[in-house]
Amino acid sequence: MTLNYPNGQHYSQKQSTTFKAKHKSPSRIVYGNRGMTLEQEINDSNQYYLEREIAVIHKKPIPIQIVDVDYPKRSAAVIKKAYFKTPSTTDYNGIYRGYYLDFEAKETKNKTAFPLSNFHDHQIKHMKACEKQHGICFTIVRFVSQDELYLMPTSLLFNYWDNQAHGRKSIPKKEIEDVSFKIEYSLQPRIPYLKAVDLLINQIEGDNNE
Amino acid sequence: MTLNYPNGQHYSQKQSTTFKAKHKSPSRIVYGNRGMTLEQEINDSNQYYLEREIAVIHKKPIPIQIVDVDYPKRSAAVIKKAYFKTPSTTDYNGIYRGYYLDFEAKETKNKTAFPLSNFHDHQIKHMKACEKQHGICFTIVRFVSQDELYLMPTSLLFNYWDNQAHGRKSIPKKEIEDVSFKIEYSLQPRIPYLKAVDLLINQIEGDNNE
Repeated sequence: MTLNYPNGQHYSQKQSTTFKAKHKSPSRIVYGNRGMTLEQEINDSNQYYLEREIAVIHKKPIPIQIVDVDYPKRSAAVIKKAYFKTPSTTDYNGIYRGYYLDFEAKETKNKTAFPLSNFHDHQIKHMKACEKQHGICFTIVRFVSQDELYLMPTSLLFNYWDNQAHGRKSIPKKEIEDVSFKIEYSLQPRIPYLKAVDLLINQIEGDNNE
Repeated sequence: MTLNYPNGQHYSQKQSTTFKAKHKSPSRIVYGNRGMTLEQEINDSNQYYLEREIAVIHKKPIPIQIVDVDYPKRSAAVIKKAYFKTPSTTDYNGIYRGYYLDFEAKETKNKTAFPLSNFHDHQIKHMKACEKQHGICFTIVRFVSQDELYLMPTSLLFNYWDNQAHGRKSIPKKEIEDVSFKIEYSLQPRIPYLKAVDLLINQIEGDNNE
């Protein structure tokens, strides 16, 4: 039996095979039923927060080194040659009820631990510098296989990062579960991470008042 | 008499003519004795503040839409085609002693007023949204001819911006002088704008306590 899509395009079993192949590819993670990356989901959640005047959080653009730009007459400038630069900060920052927020969003296919290779030294330095100025820093971690999301405090990250020369190169998932704030997916926003930020702020301010 | 530079290069009167021509060009502002743009000077000042752990403020990268990327073997990826996108936020943000800072830096050759055409609607919206979250927003304005710098509060900007349909399209320099905090150049950092930010914070917090 020949199957066709409503638009008349022929349905082929091959397509789903191609999709599975993509799903296994290490270079790009595609979520079957959603087709959205962690970054897209966080951007959408930020848009939700922005429209409702709950918070103003943006992903920073990718830094590039522009080498050559063409300015054609009567049309927009075209960048003809550019290179990616290493970012000197984290990906996201902004403001939420008077607090400066600064964070990374990372995912791993590892089932039992979060590899420290997901971070660069300058990102850790940046988060440490922000915390000295009383900013609220954290990482949103997704374990892809289990599709679990955590808001991981910097205390755990810095502890493993600073000791990796003599210790292990990854943070055990069990420890992340113990000290992080779990984020459950919701409909609107998809990733309601500010709930977890509230808990983190309470914890930080509780520690400061002790 | 023939004049040579210490490196032996011939000194020609032509060079200074060329410089003057450049100086008059509307497309790019070159400061004779410094050769630095306002952006460069603020970036350098931010680097100074960062190294001394005074504040963590960064300029955001220019947002671009990447169309085509080449991945040559054994060398860095090259962006072959990309377009500039309109930024959805201001240029600078970060944290300073617990305060979220968010600002633009703009210069004008106009001697008596600051044209509102220097701003985009989305930048104004962004600053208003940040202020609702208790962020500290402002504009660093340079009057190029007089080489004067001001930290202009948003109250003045929003007032003129919101009334421009029925009023004037620029803010008189006199009014900027009256309500802004003047920034005097220094050696280190070149633009010590955080001194002015301290005064702005005092003013805002004073208003809130009244």
